[in-house]
Amino acid sequence: MNSALARGMARKAGLPWPAPLRRHRPGDPLVPGTVLVLGGGAAAGAAEEILRGWGVEVRRNSGGAGPLGAIVLALDALRAPADLSAPALATGQALRQLVPGGRVVAYLRGEAGDAGDPVRAAARRGAEGFLRSLARELRGGATANGIVLGGETLCADAPSAVAALRFLLSGRSAYVDGQLVRVDTTAGTLPVDWELPLQGKVAVVTGAARGIGAAIARTLRRDGASVVGVDVPAAGEALAAVASQVGGTALQLDIVRPDAGQAILAHARERHGRLDIVVHNAGITRDRLLANMDRSRWESVVAVNLESQLRMNATFFDAGLQGLRIVSLASTSGIAGNRGQTNYAASKAGVMGMVGASAAAAAALGGGINAVAPGFIETDMTAAVPLATRAAARLLMPSLMQGGLPVDVAEAVGFLAWDAAAGINGQTLRVCGQSLVGA
Amino acid sequence: MNSALARGMARKAGLPWPAPLRRHRPGDPLVPGTVLVLGGGAAAGAAEEILRGWGVEVRRNSGGAGPLGAIVLALDALRAPADLSAPALATGQALRQLVPGGRVVAYLRGEAGDAGDPVRAAARRGAEGFLRSLARELRGGATANGIVLGGETLCADAPSAVAALRFLLSGRSAYVDGQLVRVDTTAGTLPVDWELPLQGKVAVVTGAARGIGAAIARTLRRDGASVVGVDVPAAGEALAAVASQVGGTALQLDIVRPDAGQAILAHARERHGRLDIVVHNAGITRDRLLANMDRSRWESVVAVNLESQLRMNATFFDAGLQGLRIVSLASTSGIAGNRGQTNYAASKAGVMGMVGASAAAAAALGGGINAVAPGFIETDMTAAVPLATRAAARLLMPSLMQGGLPVDVAEAVGFLAWDAAAGINGQTLRVCGQSLVGA
Repeated sequence: MNSALARGMARKAGLPWPAPLRRHRPGDPLVPGTVLVLGGGAAAGAAEEILRGWGVEVRRNSGGAGPLGAIVLALDALRAPADLSAPALATGQALRQLVPGGRVVAYLRGEAGDAGDPVRAAARRGAEGFLRSLARELRGGATANGIVLGGETLCADAPSAVAALRFLLSGRSAYVDGQLVRVDTTAGTLPVDWELPLQGKVAVVTGAARGIGAAIARTLRRDGASVVGVDVPAAGEALAAVASQVGGTALQLDIVRPDAGQAILAHARERHGRLDIVVHNAGITRDRLLANMDRSRWESVVAVNLESQLRMNATFFDAGLQGLRIVSLASTSGIAGNRGQTNYAASKAGVMGMVGASAAAAAALGGGINAVAPGFIETDMTAAVPLATRAAARLLMPSLMQGGLPVDVAEAVGFLAWDAAAGINGQTLRVCGQSLVGA
Repeated sequence: MNSALARGMARKAGLPWPAPLRRHRPGDPLVPGTVLVLGGGAAAGAAEEILRGWGVEVRRNSGGAGPLGAIVLALDALRAPADLSAPALATGQALRQLVPGGRVVAYLRGEAGDAGDPVRAAARRGAEGFLRSLARELRGGATANGIVLGGETLCADAPSAVAALRFLLSGRSAYVDGQLVRVDTTAGTLPVDWELPLQGKVAVVTGAARGIGAAIARTLRRDGASVVGVDVPAAGEALAAVASQVGGTALQLDIVRPDAGQAILAHARERHGRLDIVVHNAGITRDRLLANMDRSRWESVVAVNLESQLRMNATFFDAGLQGLRIVSLASTSGIAGNRGQTNYAASKAGVMGMVGASAAAAAALGGGINAVAPGFIETDMTAAVPLATRAAARLLMPSLMQGGLPVDVAEAVGFLAWDAAAGINGQTLRVCGQSLVGA
């Protein structure tokens, strides 16, 4: 069935139909139009300067006319709930000017320093509830996300805050919606060329032979990295094809081997001279209701998805790799739980615990470790699902009304691999189209 | 349409149909059968002793036969992901013996002390993903929840851990599912009579004239408290009826008045001699898409739902009320956001920020402050919704397949008002039937 016919039938049946998402293509403008900067926080001035430096047209007056590519909201100076009223209402007035694929990016401030100041904490947390609701109201593939400045003195021009603004405005964040990116330190350096933020880096991607892993390999390559693809020997042929496609090297390796970390490190050093980025993407599912779960299903999932990463990370940290950036694949199943996936959810929740507790070790080497939690990602398999079922599934993703693509996960992984993301550490970023699952 | 007919039609149409939930009735046994205690943590022995003290039959052998009213899982000593395997699989073996309305309650340990120990953090967080998934697999109105012991030395016999076990096993927690209750200190004293945990207390409930507020008034009264019902003068008649029903007093008061806190305090002291519990239940909605939002809709919601609470709390803290327990009503909309509710979600997220930042002030007076976040609660209005629509809505609540009742929210509020809950502070407890919204 062709897309136009399907869309017409869906409209007649009153079923939701998704808008195409704005995805990154090298050379495209950062945002599809003028950016309106609102709000009284110090971030407003900083954002304006940063945006102008990127050649973006900026407007500060919410009363102006003309289409908007994005709205940037400086909510970093809220002291009381009433302070949210004016910028929220100004945003509402401007929303009709936001073009399809547009963006809302808000600067918020974390509540770490708010113990004993419930009025300020209420304002700051209130801004989060506002932003998540706003994200649910946007249409046409537009998204809303926040940058949470962790410390009281951390400014919007911290390298990772700048990098997060860039990522969230761009097509790279197409399927990131209703999320908060926490920037906790001023660590990190901005790239010389925003189109090649991984220039000169050597990146290892496990599970690279297909699907999301192959998409990650292609995205890291596009952004300038040399790529080592890792996968099990049984996937050797597909792995070689991906490695060849990205001009990288292939390493056939079962990551549950106790010496997997050493093998990866040796390969990267021998063939590429260094190791800067590790993407723990390899993972398996062995779904079964817990009542029917056997030891082998449970243990294999935990061994591949979690224990292997713990062991490899220990190897990399022990090797003292300076500036190493690690990105692990978690899952919204690990956040919200999922029927039939007690083992998988345990492993993916474990990954989130792991990155949180490894942040200090990573930072001590000038690097960082974070996780990306995909929601429902469309693959060749889901394309075969009947239209009505897919429409029903979209009820669970009411903002963007579609699953994501492997490249959407890859873009988030790539962002967290940037040197500029060094101030983002120990966190999990969801790529879920503001799915209700694990919201 | 009668229930049996509707159930038969739903079954024919392949639609889900909810099981009746086990709700608390005074005098009922705590659990509907034997409790199986599993897991190697220190909490296993403590739980066994506590349960036997309550006259509950306990079994420690997962291979035994016979129906189970509950499974208690001691996961408080996990050191590595592999440690989760045995108790998880033993739980799976016992699941078929769990009766309708049964309970799984797990003891977990928080990750606060895990920085630098990613292996232990992975195990601890992994247990959360396991538990949330398990909750999604239970049927027949059974639920799974966790008690998170916050400190490394905090034991399962801390008063609030004992109280949380009691609450989660009982029918009081019927609509609490897939949630974690954090116990952070050994504060609190156990009640003399678990059927009358609020004996001798004076409780104020705002918005008490109807709905959830009236249910809270009735529940607090049932549990032994003297109740002051507060509502706006326009609801005076309904308020008087509720107050009379619970043998309490009525206070007609608009809580947005600057002196609302003083008025409440004066009334409670004059008529009841003291004030022990404040339930901030009063709230309004003025839904509108942000693009159509006006200042009055925005500001009235924030004024009633959030600013009034901040002001009243300041009054109560300034008055130095010893042991004061405050419970505020939040919402899953404040967690996940909701289309058309930017103002409401901001106010309810603000409530969560408020309780977090007020915890220290409350604890300094020997009290505590927490929030309850209801999900979809069925009222007289939703009963009129067509069967098919309600069945579709149940897709969003796949675990219990039904909305909650006002009494379910009231029971959670009541639990957090117990003196025994003093070790639970600054938190938000969801009463949402493990709804996917805000999971």
